[in-house]
Amino acid sequence: MLARYAEDVQEMKLGFVGLGIMGLPMSLNLQRAGFTLSVYNRNPARAQTLEKAGAKLCRSPKEVAENADIIFICVSDTPDVEQVIFGTDGIIHGAKAGSIVVDMSTISPEETKKFARRLAEKNIEMIDAPISGGEAGAITGTLSIMAGGSAEAFARVKPYFEKLGKNIVHVGTNGAGQVAKACNQIVIAVSIEAVSEALLFAEKCGVDGRKVREALMGGFAGSKVMEVHGNRMLNDDYKPGFKAKLHRKDMGIVMDTAAKVKAFLPGAALATRHIDEALEAGDGELDSSAIFKVLRKKVK
Amino acid sequence: MLARYAEDVQEMKLGFVGLGIMGLPMSLNLQRAGFTLSVYNRNPARAQTLEKAGAKLCRSPKEVAENADIIFICVSDTPDVEQVIFGTDGIIHGAKAGSIVVDMSTISPEETKKFARRLAEKNIEMIDAPISGGEAGAITGTLSIMAGGSAEAFARVKPYFEKLGKNIVHVGTNGAGQVAKACNQIVIAVSIEAVSEALLFAEKCGVDGRKVREALMGGFAGSKVMEVHGNRMLNDDYKPGFKAKLHRKDMGIVMDTAAKVKAFLPGAALATRHIDEALEAGDGELDSSAIFKVLRKKVK
Repeated sequence: MLARYAEDVQEMKLGFVGLGIMGLPMSLNLQRAGFTLSVYNRNPARAQTLEKAGAKLCRSPKEVAENADIIFICVSDTPDVEQVIFGTDGIIHGAKAGSIVVDMSTISPEETKKFARRLAEKNIEMIDAPISGGEAGAITGTLSIMAGGSAEAFARVKPYFEKLGKNIVHVGTNGAGQVAKACNQIVIAVSIEAVSEALLFAEKCGVDGRKVREALMGGFAGSKVMEVHGNRMLNDDYKPGFKAKLHRKDMGIVMDTAAKVKAFLPGAALATRHIDEALEAGDGELDSSAIFKVLRKKVK
Repeated sequence: MLARYAEDVQEMKLGFVGLGIMGLPMSLNLQRAGFTLSVYNRNPARAQTLEKAGAKLCRSPKEVAENADIIFICVSDTPDVEQVIFGTDGIIHGAKAGSIVVDMSTISPEETKKFARRLAEKNIEMIDAPISGGEAGAITGTLSIMAGGSAEAFARVKPYFEKLGKNIVHVGTNGAGQVAKACNQIVIAVSIEAVSEALLFAEKCGVDGRKVREALMGGFAGSKVMEVHGNRMLNDDYKPGFKAKLHRKDMGIVMDTAAKVKAFLPGAALATRHIDEALEAGDGELDSSAIFKVLRKKVK
């Protein structure tokens, strides 16, 4: 049974559109795991490493879809995904009935649902599977993957997810993966606010923030954000990590969607405002823990 | 050397004032570890368990101080600590020069510094050592202890702290323990806000919050608050934990001190407002994760 299953997996042909900071190491992990990939990137120079590893370089998302049963997408924002799937030379013009489009970008949950419906009209399945864990997670294959879509399509794609990530959760139907990713970005933004305010309070009281972090890590205030982002603040070193400008883009999706579903998110709005202020100060390329720099400049 | 050290520890006589939800199990842990305690509680009925275990029941904090080299305090708020130390029949009227007052209550960092200075005039040392970990941590001896005071006094008290807690950090000089505890309460309050908003967003989007929590726990959004308080929200079960009314008292200390040191804490102010709304709704006896109930009721 296991052998048969592994054989099925090997027979699937894969496509990958979008070879950016995340997409390039992710597609490389799939290629190196022994799968055959057809790939497309707007800037073909980014595809050289993959070509050397044996991937087929295509001239359009449509050509990728013609050569693949499962087409992964990893691009920047909602309009990019729409263009890649539905634009001239888009995936929908090349994909066979029964194929699956797996969008690993972080985009609007509402638009994701619409994209899935449009694909379903052509008997193409869609899985939204945004990721968390950054470039390091993409390289080491330890991403968190939050998936939305049918149980059947998720089961078909899961063996490939296992080459890309560790914590792989089927959250619900189409769009549910994007909702989980939005929740992820809310929690991280507001937790950065929490740790920033605590360390600012300590600093203003003349107390060593490192000792405070040490005292808090073992208890109920302990978190990954306290550990990682708290350390960035204490070292005054905001090398990303996750860039403030990208976190701002994701919080835009959160706040837009929140308005539509009538969710009251004042903490997320506050953290978004502080990320905006980091961008206004020219710190968009820094890690979003630069919220601490913003708060530090304020005088009550 | 170790034997000699242990012997010194055994010779110290201990006092404990305040046998409440936290103080009773803490003093019992000290008594059961083989130390001799003199204890006082406003309501002497609470002291019976300790008396049975071998502790000496005193009629005032002064009498406790007359019988002890190290006097622990665990009461509710700043005025209570002031009364216990400096009031009629207070500790200062019975304590010997060279003794140490260890205040494990959560009170104002600024007042703590003043108390320490007043005690120093009588050659009495003070250590502020607020705790985190709740009743369960007090019973099992697994509290987090954040201490402020001189390194010498901390070293003398540390062996007793080890009977009460696990993560024991000497944060800095007098008041630094209270500052760390304030930071702890900021992080927990704002993190509860973060998790509440994320789970509210998921709910309004029609996505299973349990799956979202599962997807987020392994990544950068993972935290003790997501684990413990997130679970309370998802189960709609707000049995404390830590009561909203006590968290509100601590946030009062935070916001008062923040105003004095000119720290800008808008996230903490927001979370405090939501705890207030929980209290207004009659939920002060519930865990402070009842912030989720407050947000849920709002319509944008």
